Amino acid sequence: MIDLYTWKTPNGRKPAIALEEMHVDYVVHPVDIGRDEQFLPNFVALSPNSKIPAIVDQENNMTLFESGAILQYLADKTGRLLPTAGAARYTTLQWLNWQIGGVGPMFGQLGFFANRAKEHIPLAVNRYLTESNRLLDVLEQRLSQSAYAGSDDYSIADIAIYPWVVAAIASNRTLLGDARARRPAMDRWMTKLGERPSVIKGMNVLETPASAKS
Amino acid sequence: MIDLYTWKTPNGRKPAIALEEMHVDYVVHPVDIGRDEQFLPNFVALSPNSKIPAIVDQENNMTLFESGAILQYLADKTGRLLPTAGAARYTTLQWLNWQIGGVGPMFGQLGFFANRAKEHIPLAVNRYLTESNRLLDVLEQRLSQSAYAGSDDYSIADIAIYPWVVAAIASNRTLLGDARARRPAMDRWMTKLGERPSVIKGMNVLETPASAKS
Ligand SMILES: N[C@@H](CCC(=O)N[C@@H](CS)C(=O)NCC(=O)O)C(=O)O
Ligand SMILES: N[C@@H](CCC(=O)N[C@@H](CS)C(=O)NCC(=O)O)C(=O)O
Repeated sequence: MIDLYTWKTPNGRKPAIALEEMHVDYVVHPVDIGRDEQFLPNFVALSPNSKIPAIVDQENNMTLFESGAILQYLADKTGRLLPTAGAARYTTLQWLNWQIGGVGPMFGQLGFFANRAKEHIPLAVNRYLTESNRLLDVLEQRLSQSAYAGSDDYSIADIAIYPWVVAAIASNRTLLGDARARRPAMDRWMTKLGERPSVIKGMNVLETPASAKS
Repeated sequence: MIDLYTWKTPNGRKPAIALEEMHVDYVVHPVDIGRDEQFLPNFVALSPNSKIPAIVDQENNMTLFESGAILQYLADKTGRLLPTAGAARYTTLQWLNWQIGGVGPMFGQLGFFANRAKEHIPLAVNRYLTESNRLLDVLEQRLSQSAYAGSDDYSIADIAIYPWVVAAIASNRTLLGDARARRPAMDRWMTKLGERPSVIKGMNVLETPASAKS
């Protein structure tokens, strides 16, 4: 049994999707970052960086934060969604790292300057818009050569990237334009992932039943 | 033999330090990002994200980009600087991911808005200064409880974090203040790492012999 401390954000949805795909039992503990609950002492004791997600594995009492490390831990624990050795393992980890170090932070900065900042700062919006579009183009190129992001097999790299692409497109329709229509390989990949029952369940973690249906 | 495509930046120094520590033979191929060489077709063929570092392992012809994936690959290949299993392995990967997803991107944005942007934008400088100081505080807290970032043993997590902390402090002295004096555990860790011959060599990758001595 895994305790999952999370919220309904791209990083928070990744371990929920993975746990569903891997058929691991888990209990969700909401950490409402809109109410600053990530700074409460009980949560900081688990996640000293004060960010979601974090997990506790009740089997060995291990605590882990950082979604990339959590995905890799769960994949190694279950033997699923990450090749156990060889080139495909590291290529998958490469695309996972690309999400953690590029897509996540850069889409995140675009979201801040385009939608949440108290001032409109064209230089900052353009900086992150350019980088986000470039990253989407890198993904398109990858998916035009490989069925999934990490290799020809579905993996934790896809689980890491997908919620971020969904969120970026949904919240920046004007800025990013018709991001899917211009990227057919990415579009097919998003359709394929979006139909997986575990992806649907994980994307809806902590949503009320009503909104989960929408 | 490893071909290392890199430049004298924090991400570029990490694999050089690791290769030195692991006693792996390597050849350095400079990719001058100041001259946009990361966009040259030969390099993009290796690193489709157009960023350094990237490696090719001549033993198996494997190509890899993303410093986090490269560090993990080299650690697994040599059996060094990353526990092979158990909690310490994932805690080490957790702190490695914390660097890849937090320290790198956020220190990077601070560097841009504080030192390179064409306009002075207080909102952006403050945003990344606050986050960088917070991350340094998280590191201080970690290092006050653990001899090294990943565990009580020196690891690829330290190798990932150290060049970024050195660079951030060197290029933002006014903004970050006396970042080391206010963080004694981090200060001791930086002294300890800075004395390692392999760290010295890796930090000086692609420096001319003259500047390497300084
Ligand atoms: N690199 C981290 C990033 C985690 C992260 O940024 N989480 C966000 C939500 S998506 C958060 O907790 N934000 C609250 C805050 O920054 O205070 C990971 O992949 O787990
Ligand atoms: N997440 C990547 C980041 C790599 C990265 O940002 N590299 C920088 C140099 S430190 C670069 O190549 N910049 C050139 C560019 O962005 O065009 C990694 O850890 O390898």
